[in-house]
Amino acid sequence: AQSYVMLSGVVDVGVSSYQNTSETPLGVTAKTSKTAVTQGAWGASRLVFKGQEDLGGGLGAAFFLDAAIFPDDGTVGGNTNNTGPANAGYFNRRSTVSLLSPWGEIRLGRDYTPEFWNDNIFDPFLTSGVGTNLISTANGYSNNGAAVNGFQANNMYVRASNSVGYFLPAVLGGFYGQVMYAFNEQVKYDPGTLTPNAPNNSRAGGYVGGRFGYAKDKIDIAASYSRATLADNYYAGRTTKLDTFNMGASYDFDVVKIMGEYSRAELKTTITGVVPLVNPSPTGTGFLVGFTLPIGPGLIRGSYAQLKIDPDRPALLTGNPKAEKFALGYVYNLSKRTALYTTYAQINNKNGYDLGIGNSPAYVTSGTFQAKTSRGFDLGMRHFF
Amino acid sequence: AQSYVMLSGVVDVGVSSYQNTSETPLGVTAKTSKTAVTQGAWGASRLVFKGQEDLGGGLGAAFFLDAAIFPDDGTVGGNTNNTGPANAGYFNRRSTVSLLSPWGEIRLGRDYTPEFWNDNIFDPFLTSGVGTNLISTANGYSNNGAAVNGFQANNMYVRASNSVGYFLPAVLGGFYGQVMYAFNEQVKYDPGTLTPNAPNNSRAGGYVGGRFGYAKDKIDIAASYSRATLADNYYAGRTTKLDTFNMGASYDFDVVKIMGEYSRAELKTTITGVVPLVNPSPTGTGFLVGFTLPIGPGLIRGSYAQLKIDPDRPALLTGNPKAEKFALGYVYNLSKRTALYTTYAQINNKNGYDLGIGNSPAYVTSGTFQAKTSRGFDLGMRHFF
Amino acid sequence: AQSYVMLSGVVDVGVSSYQNTSETPLGVTAKTSKTAVTQGAWGASRLVFKGQEDLGGGLGAAFFLDAAIFPDDGTVGGNTNNTGPANAGYFNRRSTVSLLSPWGEIRLGRDYTPEFWNDNIFDPFLTSGVGTNLISTANGYSNNGAAVNGFQANNMYVRASNSVGYFLPAVLGGFYGQVMYAFNEQVKYDPGTLTPNAPNNSRAGGYVGGRFGYAKDKIDIAASYSRATLADNYYAGRTTKLDTFNMGASYDFDVVKIMGEYSRAELKTTITGVVPLVNPSPTGTGFLVGFTLPIGPGLIRGSYAQLKIDPDRPALLTGNPKAEKFALGYVYNLSKRTALYTTYAQINNKNGYDLGIGNSPAYVTSGTFQAKTSRGFDLGMRHFF
Repeated sequence: AQSYVMLSGVVDVGVSSYQNTSETPLGVTAKTSKTAVTQGAWGASRLVFKGQEDLGGGLGAAFFLDAAIFPDDGTVGGNTNNTGPANAGYFNRRSTVSLLSPWGEIRLGRDYTPEFWNDNIFDPFLTSGVGTNLISTANGYSNNGAAVNGFQANNMYVRASNSVGYFLPAVLGGFYGQVMYAFNEQVKYDPGTLTPNAPNNSRAGGYVGGRFGYAKDKIDIAASYSRATLADNYYAGRTTKLDTFNMGASYDFDVVKIMGEYSRAELKTTITGVVPLVNPSPTGTGFLVGFTLPIGPGLIRGSYAQLKIDPDRPALLTGNPKAEKFALGYVYNLSKRTALYTTYAQINNKNGYDLGIGNSPAYVTSGTFQAKTSRGFDLGMRHFF
Repeated sequence: AQSYVMLSGVVDVGVSSYQNTSETPLGVTAKTSKTAVTQGAWGASRLVFKGQEDLGGGLGAAFFLDAAIFPDDGTVGGNTNNTGPANAGYFNRRSTVSLLSPWGEIRLGRDYTPEFWNDNIFDPFLTSGVGTNLISTANGYSNNGAAVNGFQANNMYVRASNSVGYFLPAVLGGFYGQVMYAFNEQVKYDPGTLTPNAPNNSRAGGYVGGRFGYAKDKIDIAASYSRATLADNYYAGRTTKLDTFNMGASYDFDVVKIMGEYSRAELKTTITGVVPLVNPSPTGTGFLVGFTLPIGPGLIRGSYAQLKIDPDRPALLTGNPKAEKFALGYVYNLSKRTALYTTYAQINNKNGYDLGIGNSPAYVTSGTFQAKTSRGFDLGMRHFF
Repeated sequence: AQSYVMLSGVVDVGVSSYQNTSETPLGVTAKTSKTAVTQGAWGASRLVFKGQEDLGGGLGAAFFLDAAIFPDDGTVGGNTNNTGPANAGYFNRRSTVSLLSPWGEIRLGRDYTPEFWNDNIFDPFLTSGVGTNLISTANGYSNNGAAVNGFQANNMYVRASNSVGYFLPAVLGGFYGQVMYAFNEQVKYDPGTLTPNAPNNSRAGGYVGGRFGYAKDKIDIAASYSRATLADNYYAGRTTKLDTFNMGASYDFDVVKIMGEYSRAELKTTITGVVPLVNPSPTGTGFLVGFTLPIGPGLIRGSYAQLKIDPDRPALLTGNPKAEKFALGYVYNLSKRTALYTTYAQINNKNGYDLGIGNSPAYVTSGTFQAKTSRGFDLGMRHFF
């Protein structure tokens, strides 16, 4: 609980190569490929201003301002809106102020959502680069095929603005936990009939979630549940929420650390007072298993993951959309702050699913082409400062 | 005059609640309300890079780069154009370089306007949060009703870009002062007939103002005058200027500090060579009285203010638009750097005026609804770093 | 090779005045003029985060994040796209991570192009303010007349995103050098017939260049060559490249330092397999001579430059477009970090060329008016931090 103010960050830049292959039912292939200077393939490049003040009596104040930086072209920041049109924010990764106490931490501002942490921490690739957890790739629901499968994009998958969070204190014998609530900041009208007749201006943008776990010695295990309100229509009484449950665990055998995660997300649309049976509730279910294996100053990382979608629609002629991914990488630490790394990964899609490696070019989907395979390769350097 | 370069700032985040009530002549009410995570309710969140160099002989150089930050959602900056379409600037709060000398300071760049300081310094709430000085709320003239009352938005109310300022040295026995000139940076054409026939491209965006005061022991008193050129039309020979005069004073009785301000703004449109009598010159006149009362590590703050508009138009059937505001708040200092605070405030409008608490949702003004009451409540934490 | 992380920068603000004169064949003149608070007339204002880590064995890691700042109005950053629509980036000046070794430096990210350095280093005004090297003014090819003369704007003139660079180590007895390659990051389609039929989405945005020189004692001499791909059309098989060659030298006679540069740029459009003879290859050729003369804490700077365009088109009735420039300035150093400066410069255009001093208002070119003379004056203060 010492007082400090500091500037820190990460610059992580490399060269990456991607190739996405589509196929027609007759086996004709179409490929899109790209080679690029990329950032963040080990971990997102960032610029952080943070500080803490010891207030005495176990109390403290803290702030954390974290901006995504893209050293490949010098741009900074990203969308910070919980819903609606994108709005670029500089400290898009995190911007919070905290009141610390022996009874825990109260945190206000833009922060990570609890359920994201399991996707990140139990992934050997920390949701970065071509090796990124396939569950994470699916969970933003911003791939072209998501809408086809009944989903809609969730801006609040990784972070939410306008949030109030509470964290358990770090004195619970290994138990840890957090809850988070984000305001939708929508205008309420009284009488309600004055509400403008436009979609997503009454309840969309709200979030509530929590995560609880236990970490001691060589084990870490955690589960989370969250509900993000993605859409609404006041006059139709319609509200669309994405419920996500996941749990993950890791065990460090010293020679090798193994980890795994299970995740299930369901999109539910309710109408006030009635839950119509015909309303589809598409689900996405996935799991990941992975390992990290230290060898001297190096680290071998690998993972395998599966993801399947149940669109919850009658008379789907083909099987449900599915994807699997494997990833293998090596990190060579030049120091505690600097590392060279390389990763290869491949996603295989089935039954029309179209998950692709991040930054890879769009699949060809014209005519009868369907997304098949996404391959990616990273070679880069990461430096902490 | 020691040399230094430093990073500093403010993070101030809280939860606020707002309710704006409109009424028809028959007494039917319509309410809009919102609860939100907000920033800056004690003082604007900011990130500051500043420094000073001692050049010897009483000379010095200094710079100040000050960015508004919005920790509730991670966005940064704000409009920095003196006129015309908004243009987001990162160091929107202040970005200046100064030459310091025994004869005063010359300051170049984007800076606060002199007349804003009286609205800020003689307000117990420092023009922040729901308690903000009502004069300040009115002076931007960007509420929906401003145009109805004959005003137009003034981008240069708080700050102006492209400015050259001069500050008296701090050795005048308590007397202080500053003058500021901002260039409109418009293109001049010779012959003038080549000037494009478009509004606001000849003189709009210029500013000139000054502020002088006396502060010693327990007293502080200051007056300012400014002229901002808001609009022009070269071919019509028309120029629209907003003239603002204000004065404020505070006296510290130790037990309690009291303060007050008077402000008068007038919008004048002149046509080259002729001041047509029929041209309306709407005025806005207001006053504020306030106090701060320290109790141990706490501070009680309160204010009352009135603002009225004279649209200077014939045959106004109703009385002139008026508003009053009262605000009461409490600040509890956990340390010199960190405080918790809460404020409640209410604005009452009459005769169609529509001033609302900052960040509150728009009044319902459809049909015969007229803005009446704006209520706001802040609860938050402010941390200096 | 000590480890460090630091914040530094430049604030340079002043007042500048510009006047651009056009003339008809009959000698009628039209003038546009402007006075403004400007930045960067000695050197671009910037905010820099940089650091280096000693990895042992002669190895090191380094990062450099450099944002343009505009203290006159508080804005930050600039376009960082190699091609296509502008995209504002915060660290637009440079954002790189480097691996340092006894065999040289590998640098990844957004960086200066090699050929820009000769335009900058051998210019007494360091391509800043009204005195800027006329070759540099011409080389962006973004003046209105560039298209008329057969050129197109080159976003990669000063810097390129998505680059990989290599720098020779500093142990070669005065010899130095660098090469740079920037990826166009365009999507490749296989089969190629799937490529969308749109311009500039196949090869535009790529860059390759190098610079080699010798600097020892009082002499510095360097030459560079670069090729920037500015446009392409997949189906037409068309590729448009700008080839730039330049060389410069300086010699320090102690009393005075003299310098000079020669530059030649040629725009070449090729069609796959055929180089059609009728395709014009416009060239721009220029030279500069300059000096810097220290007098106590002051420095007198002066330069003369010429630039001419050969549009490579048949039947040009007038002579080829030409421009000349002279500039004279004085810098007074108040300390190593702070200086006051003033510069006067004038550009004279012939045969329809329209080069103007940076920030000066556009020439009147309506009717038979042709750009003639651009005059500029800077008076400002520069402060390093």
